[in-house]
Amino acid sequence: MKLNVLFSPIVADELYFTGKTSVVIDVLRASSTIVTALKNGAKEIVPVATVEFAVKVSGGMFGGQTLLGGERNTKKIEGFALGNSPLEYEEKVVNGKSIVFYTTNGTKALTKARFSENLFVCSFLNLNAVAKHLVSLNNNVEIICAGRNNFFSLEDTVCAGKLAAEIISMNPEVELNDSLYAALALNEKYGQVLLKMLKQSEHGKLLIENGFDEDINYCAQLNVFDVVPYYTNGVLKLMK
Amino acid sequence: MKLNVLFSPIVADELYFTGKTSVVIDVLRASSTIVTALKNGAKEIVPVATVEFAVKVSGGMFGGQTLLGGERNTKKIEGFALGNSPLEYEEKVVNGKSIVFYTTNGTKALTKARFSENLFVCSFLNLNAVAKHLVSLNNNVEIICAGRNNFFSLEDTVCAGKLAAEIISMNPEVELNDSLYAALALNEKYGQVLLKMLKQSEHGKLLIENGFDEDINYCAQLNVFDVVPYYTNGVLKLMK
Repeated sequence: MKLNVLFSPIVADELYFTGKTSVVIDVLRASSTIVTALKNGAKEIVPVATVEFAVKVSGGMFGGQTLLGGERNTKKIEGFALGNSPLEYEEKVVNGKSIVFYTTNGTKALTKARFSENLFVCSFLNLNAVAKHLVSLNNNVEIICAGRNNFFSLEDTVCAGKLAAEIISMNPEVELNDSLYAALALNEKYGQVLLKMLKQSEHGKLLIENGFDEDINYCAQLNVFDVVPYYTNGVLKLMK
Repeated sequence: MKLNVLFSPIVADELYFTGKTSVVIDVLRASSTIVTALKNGAKEIVPVATVEFAVKVSGGMFGGQTLLGGERNTKKIEGFALGNSPLEYEEKVVNGKSIVFYTTNGTKALTKARFSENLFVCSFLNLNAVAKHLVSLNNNVEIICAGRNNFFSLEDTVCAGKLAAEIISMNPEVELNDSLYAALALNEKYGQVLLKMLKQSEHGKLLIENGFDEDINYCAQLNVFDVVPYYTNGVLKLMK
């Protein structure tokens, strides 16, 4: 079993992922929000790469039981029912709904990796569940950090490192490469102080400036949900 | 003073560098070779982004005192006088010569960053000299890891982290960001065991497979040359 970490989705093109097993991580906040929405009963999440496509999809498809969700520059998009705060995605709001979801980095990474044979979503919230599932598949894995506007993001890489460490603890035969050495080192340094790390990260600071402190506390929780979102035919659902 | 580390040149486009102060790092081996060649009296290095352009440039320019150097997939290119091993660039070979230089990652990173207002080359060999010069300029700095085929490379990032740590030791006012937290953490983890780190890196292993063990020993030397290569009008020279 080999693991590889991509520190930004831009380092590979779409066809790179063809036939692969991939995991997308966008801790602040898309992958945390996707995990939360599905855990709280959303029927599915439809990740889209542009706002225009979100509006188009939400109009006619999925039987009208749709909600538009997401953000641009951390803020809710005009006309959207929901932003990108996981705390908005309560059971009473999302239960049974199809959620068309656009975010600046996370849903772009997901749509980029859409040719993967297996595509999963990981956050700190469901890290152990994803690790266990990946070990059971025993495929090579591409761990994709959504990053920020193509640039590196600390929190996604620490999460990638923690996911890798968890997988290695269950399967010590994993082959190491440069990206893993780096992600594992960052997990060693920051993996026991997740909340502090999130607060000192660039994205964390921006969220705090915009009043989303509670989201950071929420996204720093480790292994609180035993769920694995996976991508199938254009939508994200939970593994049974 | 702000520092930013790019873990691959692909995360930014060419115009991103316009007006900036940038440093290119390709420890194995382009930046180590450039530093060595200039230290040993080469008149200049002409970094080029394609082999075809290297051949074209070498034919008619620079008064005939040119040598073609570089590699493709770690090996010397057919018809080139020199490969990409710094040990080949001895004084008796390079003194007074213009060297047209192509490598898979390093010279591509250099040509990508060519719109920088100030553009320097750093390796472990000349790290302290580059750090001192950057502190004296007191500009914001983009530290560009050449990486490998757009992907992350451990040795370039450890070098970036060590360069950043050196700058911060001279100027504690440097603002930290996500990329710096990561590069500094990797320097903490690997910065005292450079040779071991180089040998365990993907590129290091490939070089060892191809018989370049001595290059790795050479490139692991820290602060042995007090030189700063800079880019001006298409060529690299030493700062006086």
